[in-house]
Amino acid sequence: MAWTNSKDRALRERAQAVIPNGMYGHQSVMLLPDDYPQFFSRGEGAYMWDADGNRYLDLLCGYGPNLFGYGHKAIDDAYVARLRGGDTLTGPGPAMVELAEAMVGMVSHADWAMFCKNGTDATTMAMMVARNHTKKKTIVLAKGAYHGAAPWCTPLKNGVTEADRANQVFYDYNDVESLEAAVKAAGGDLAAIFASPIKHDAFIDQEAPSPEYARRARELCDEHGALLIVDDVRAGLRLARDCSWSLVGVKPDLSSWGKAIANGHPISALLGAEAFRMAAATIYVTGSFWFSAAPMEAALVTLGLVRDTDYLERTIALGERLRAGLDEAAGRHGFGLRQTGPAQLPLIMFEDDADFAKGYAWCDALIRRGVYMHPWHNMFICAAMTEADIDFAVEAGDDAFKAIKAAGKLEPATKLQILHQHAAE
Amino acid sequence: MAWTNSKDRALRERAQAVIPNGMYGHQSVMLLPDDYPQFFSRGEGAYMWDADGNRYLDLLCGYGPNLFGYGHKAIDDAYVARLRGGDTLTGPGPAMVELAEAMVGMVSHADWAMFCKNGTDATTMAMMVARNHTKKKTIVLAKGAYHGAAPWCTPLKNGVTEADRANQVFYDYNDVESLEAAVKAAGGDLAAIFASPIKHDAFIDQEAPSPEYARRARELCDEHGALLIVDDVRAGLRLARDCSWSLVGVKPDLSSWGKAIANGHPISALLGAEAFRMAAATIYVTGSFWFSAAPMEAALVTLGLVRDTDYLERTIALGERLRAGLDEAAGRHGFGLRQTGPAQLPLIMFEDDADFAKGYAWCDALIRRGVYMHPWHNMFICAAMTEADIDFAVEAGDDAFKAIKAAGKLEPATKLQILHQHAAE
Repeated sequence: MAWTNSKDRALRERAQAVIPNGMYGHQSVMLLPDDYPQFFSRGEGAYMWDADGNRYLDLLCGYGPNLFGYGHKAIDDAYVARLRGGDTLTGPGPAMVELAEAMVGMVSHADWAMFCKNGTDATTMAMMVARNHTKKKTIVLAKGAYHGAAPWCTPLKNGVTEADRANQVFYDYNDVESLEAAVKAAGGDLAAIFASPIKHDAFIDQEAPSPEYARRARELCDEHGALLIVDDVRAGLRLARDCSWSLVGVKPDLSSWGKAIANGHPISALLGAEAFRMAAATIYVTGSFWFSAAPMEAALVTLGLVRDTDYLERTIALGERLRAGLDEAAGRHGFGLRQTGPAQLPLIMFEDDADFAKGYAWCDALIRRGVYMHPWHNMFICAAMTEADIDFAVEAGDDAFKAIKAAGKLEPATKLQILHQHAAE
Repeated sequence: MAWTNSKDRALRERAQAVIPNGMYGHQSVMLLPDDYPQFFSRGEGAYMWDADGNRYLDLLCGYGPNLFGYGHKAIDDAYVARLRGGDTLTGPGPAMVELAEAMVGMVSHADWAMFCKNGTDATTMAMMVARNHTKKKTIVLAKGAYHGAAPWCTPLKNGVTEADRANQVFYDYNDVESLEAAVKAAGGDLAAIFASPIKHDAFIDQEAPSPEYARRARELCDEHGALLIVDDVRAGLRLARDCSWSLVGVKPDLSSWGKAIANGHPISALLGAEAFRMAAATIYVTGSFWFSAAPMEAALVTLGLVRDTDYLERTIALGERLRAGLDEAAGRHGFGLRQTGPAQLPLIMFEDDADFAKGYAWCDALIRRGVYMHPWHNMFICAAMTEADIDFAVEAGDDAFKAIKAAGKLEPATKLQILHQHAAE
């Protein structure tokens, strides 16, 4: 059956009438090749199906939530059982205590937990706890890092005021001098340093944190009585069975979590060390669905799988298999790839591709071959993938390299260029 | 079987170790009588059961989400079917378009919809859209109104900076002169006026909006090119099958929704008029779980019930039956009640009860008689309640009046007094 997208096109047209721009946020395909499907009708394990019924091996994993596979039976059974028994009630269920115990038991720097819905909730609460504890205001953040989409942190400044961005100083990730300069610029007012566990910015090569940078961030916080915050929303549980910075031997004071902690069910969390318990207890944060029990039951099963299975080692091995296979295939067709990030959180871009022409054309070719990849955002390997799935992706990749080579001159990614132009203005 | 709370006490003790203050947010029982259960194990229809197995007729309805009854079969079946088929994928499902169409079809001022998770997400987006459209900054809000728990709006200022509250001017709800003065104070910089659909502040009598106030808010926005925002998160679908201000004949530019729109499943929404579509399309807002399909399927079924059943007329009639029954019972025992708000969103307080001694004692007595009420927050009637349930609540109320009268001198609500003292500082 030939690949078609007529149902997706029809849905997009209807969406244009009732949703601004037809879609918004990170799942809008506005900045992806034209034929990327916007709407999906099914997910199972490592695969998803678009509204036209085309099947894809999904390397985005819902942009992170899918860690153990779509529709994981044990996790979803726990969700459904709690849903049928009582989910969003006038108080939390016992699962809230069990989940806080489980997370505190798993994450070495943590003594307490608070649960919320969005990753942005958790990063915003981290900022509030730091300011409440220190009675200082300035937060120091890495340039270009994503910490959510509230006015204080959203990547676009439309609808955002200067006051929303007051008390912020920026540094370059992994650059100790730049970090020191930012802390100096904060004067005596440093409340917190924010750090992504790895540099996983869009559009550019990913970087692991250097131990010097991570350790210096810890020292600077200690020197200034400020809080070190690791934003593990995206990478949490993907790199370690602990806070991601346990890999560099640095304990933050607070860490934010979300995405995968309930394998796609809506819950996020802020974890913190003992010294900041009182500051956390005296901010007022809440949400209509923050106490719902079903996502907490699902999170408990997910954390059990994190503890008891080799999911981490397998996703790393699968990621390495994908990386090696694609490198070899690209070379065979005369392309050079920039594959960065941990193997299980891969970002794949092309050498000599400033206008993303190759990346867009290759991803577009992959879509038509049943593999969903992203030309400029990090991807995710999930534990439901098998070696056969990875080999399928590599074969599709090989065929896609061949196709874009045969196509000759490729179109630059005009949509992206418009975005960059706007951002520069 | 005697009412006991030993399991709840044990859970609370465990919670103290791993959750700051043992609980946070609106579902913390910190400001309720000591024996109020913190943890619940089951919900069904109009009832919930605490961790010790005590059953309550639940007049809080999850603080709003429960509109058609806990565990509503048709709504939850739709949720579960979508969950099993694919929920949090790499893009939304077709249900997102259908739900946007349904909400735009239902709400007369709306031409487009955006979905999110928290009520706070929707109110924050409303503020951003207004600022993006007008290129102005000042928002005018009613003193004491609740619009969420982000730094710009949370009721407590711990962890909040002055900059977080910049560009805000306050007015007194229903006071036209005060509203005019606030708009004047905004100078030429008015971006939006926020209004709750009714005055549903905690601790004080509820008020319906006067038509003069609502109309003047509309006029002032029109005169200044600012946006009128009705925050229907709490009261939406409880007062009308349209925006709540359709009852006073005033159309806002934007309205925020949440709580009951999927009968407890996690989803909120911002609705807007055509003129603001471009402003909404050019802010960047998103969340990990905003595109999940299962809550949208549940919302579609919920909105179908809103359209096709007499839930609204029934909840009003049940609320009136409760109000009349309790008034009569209170009078019989020599108490005067201040019952305010729409009948289906009742707030029940006592005359001559500045220290909430009567309110606390009566609610505490009700808990032991199987009725969960709140001494200072508005409550909710749900469509799963029957006349027999209301009569049960009235009988329990009558017996509780008798008990607190027999008790003689009542203890003032010390916890609340501490809060008020802090707030005054």
